[in-house]
Amino acid sequence: MPHPAVDLLAARHAAVRAAAAMEGLDGLVVFHLPNIRYLTGFAGSAAIAILTRDEIILITDGRYVTEVEETVRPGCPGLRLVKVDPAYDATLAACLEAAGAIRVGFESAHLSVKRHDALAAALRNASAGGGSAAALVPAERLVEACRMRKDAAELAALRRGGALIDAIAAAVLGDVRAGQSEWEVAAGIDDRIRRGGFERASFETIVASGPNAALPHARPGRRVLQPGDLVVLDFGGVCEGYCTDITRTVSVGEPSAEARGLYEAVAAAHRAAAAAVRPGAPITDVDEAARAVLEARGLGTAFSHATGHGLGLEVHEEPRVGPRRPDIPGVPPAGRDDRLEPGIVFTIEPGAYVPGLGGVRIEDDVLVTPDGLEWLTGARRELRVV
Amino acid sequence: MPHPAVDLLAARHAAVRAAAAMEGLDGLVVFHLPNIRYLTGFAGSAAIAILTRDEIILITDGRYVTEVEETVRPGCPGLRLVKVDPAYDATLAACLEAAGAIRVGFESAHLSVKRHDALAAALRNASAGGGSAAALVPAERLVEACRMRKDAAELAALRRGGALIDAIAAAVLGDVRAGQSEWEVAAGIDDRIRRGGFERASFETIVASGPNAALPHARPGRRVLQPGDLVVLDFGGVCEGYCTDITRTVSVGEPSAEARGLYEAVAAAHRAAAAAVRPGAPITDVDEAARAVLEARGLGTAFSHATGHGLGLEVHEEPRVGPRRPDIPGVPPAGRDDRLEPGIVFTIEPGAYVPGLGGVRIEDDVLVTPDGLEWLTGARRELRVV
Repeated sequence: MPHPAVDLLAARHAAVRAAAAMEGLDGLVVFHLPNIRYLTGFAGSAAIAILTRDEIILITDGRYVTEVEETVRPGCPGLRLVKVDPAYDATLAACLEAAGAIRVGFESAHLSVKRHDALAAALRNASAGGGSAAALVPAERLVEACRMRKDAAELAALRRGGALIDAIAAAVLGDVRAGQSEWEVAAGIDDRIRRGGFERASFETIVASGPNAALPHARPGRRVLQPGDLVVLDFGGVCEGYCTDITRTVSVGEPSAEARGLYEAVAAAHRAAAAAVRPGAPITDVDEAARAVLEARGLGTAFSHATGHGLGLEVHEEPRVGPRRPDIPGVPPAGRDDRLEPGIVFTIEPGAYVPGLGGVRIEDDVLVTPDGLEWLTGARRELRVV
Repeated sequence: MPHPAVDLLAARHAAVRAAAAMEGLDGLVVFHLPNIRYLTGFAGSAAIAILTRDEIILITDGRYVTEVEETVRPGCPGLRLVKVDPAYDATLAACLEAAGAIRVGFESAHLSVKRHDALAAALRNASAGGGSAAALVPAERLVEACRMRKDAAELAALRRGGALIDAIAAAVLGDVRAGQSEWEVAAGIDDRIRRGGFERASFETIVASGPNAALPHARPGRRVLQPGDLVVLDFGGVCEGYCTDITRTVSVGEPSAEARGLYEAVAAAHRAAAAAVRPGAPITDVDEAARAVLEARGLGTAFSHATGHGLGLEVHEEPRVGPRRPDIPGVPPAGRDDRLEPGIVFTIEPGAYVPGLGGVRIEDDVLVTPDGLEWLTGARRELRVV
């Protein structure tokens, strides 16, 4: 992706530093690659970052050193590159020893027990040797919480991606016909995504026809599309690092009255969810609005997943756009009280899955604005008969 | 994938139970999805398994319950299905409380600190309440070590996949020509993988031309193939759950003498690596053989990665097929003394990357046999001029 402007990266660093300071931390060790990309622009497959009060250390290996020197460091304020020697966690331990007696958070959701225990042992050894290594403290969601509200560079990529995937969705709806296998349809979609200007697919394309459409997580198979099928097509592409995600449902031949009714119910839920989007409202309002429409039509249990999910560097990220969570003993209510804010990007994708009839899902990507929402996708949302 | 035969799954359970017993464990909590698939045949995207002395508990959510009842449980000896309620780790904690005062390993490389701490707190609470919950002990590589030697069902899938990807490689070499962009070539490969009988690509297809071919991890981009380019094509497909991985390098137009020399050097390294494969030899022999050939030709530093990697349910799995590791303080020498054994499947993929000239990589998949090796792939390994 084009490198985010220096001032945007500086703002991201400032936001995460502020969040860390609120937790009494002098810095944060970042293991999660999308978080590293957000903070530095580095898009490789292996790195660790340490954000301190005055710099951001990027640890990476020989494969990426030239790329970082040439394309990452010039645009990333305060970046210091440290080359892995001899292994990632040993290099991290050395950096933390050199940092002195500061309190550093680590992303506890993104570090395995095995790696943590080895790292903690190395730091204990360093301290026992008379050094004053940094102390590691579990931390959560410091970068993820910042990533929820997209900045100008992110919105530009998401808007470009939305326009591209809209065009592909329109073309795909013209491609589908009876006699093709699910696999063939999926291959055609993937081909359009690759040729359409995306870096890659956001996730494995779903093509679910007839009875398979009643399974929300079906994988494309050998089944051939037949007259009377509803066919769920769920796909997306990555544009400049940012994910798009769209679902359209088509009918092979004229739909039955029941199938048309199912489609209309989901379309109404989709409209209701969109109408619930306004800054300041609890995020759970969006799911509640969609679910109420389907429940009123007796389709409550047919809607077996959340209404949506956040979208950005990851295809599933914060916020969760689902029902209000029940209290679970021992599970912290993360995100339960989150509210819609301008800059949040998420999917609206109600669905209904009825064994014997099939399934319908309609999904678009939206941005919360100061006034309500902006559609990032929205091509051909009516039922398409092929 | 077709479900492995009941007796093969029983043998896998017995092997992991024996490995757990050697560590003084009564069971193992399995978080890593490929390990769960190996032990049960379950191929969904979310589950936790607990292998105890007399059963295997599969915890999964509502999306997968029907599939497990119909297609997984009938073929998996001792399987007990537990539906998630209300969340994965809460359900796991309940199962561990019900298991009583046994010593259970957990995959410490596949559980985050965050989840571990929450789980440990829940079990402490249960014990404080007078219960006798299982004690959790870090464990490593118990399933991975078993997965290194493939059984009959796995070899059947790997042979089928190898034949399919060979056919695709031959076709792809006929597709490539000057004037295509890297993206177009990659899209063509992905299309052939999808239509060629694979479930999906094993990894993101690499097409690296001209100067990009000198970067071993380049992503396909807008660059158009030009006369004089070497082009590295690295791709694979998943067949019945098992990954294939093949690389071919082509020359656009007649190669220079230097380019041809580079190709011949890598081809010689590939042959030397294959000749080093025999049961009982240290796995590091394979890398040493390839590296010696390239070093003798002054290309030691141009070969910047390991010679290969294990292949199976994951596209990178054990064993590591690289150079002998230096001793690293604090890092256990995992796999350093591993030896080649019949049933081990891995890639042989030496490469040489020379800025200004380009890059060459040649990769095939092999199976260690009692006598030496069996090629799982091998189509058109000579330099192809397009």
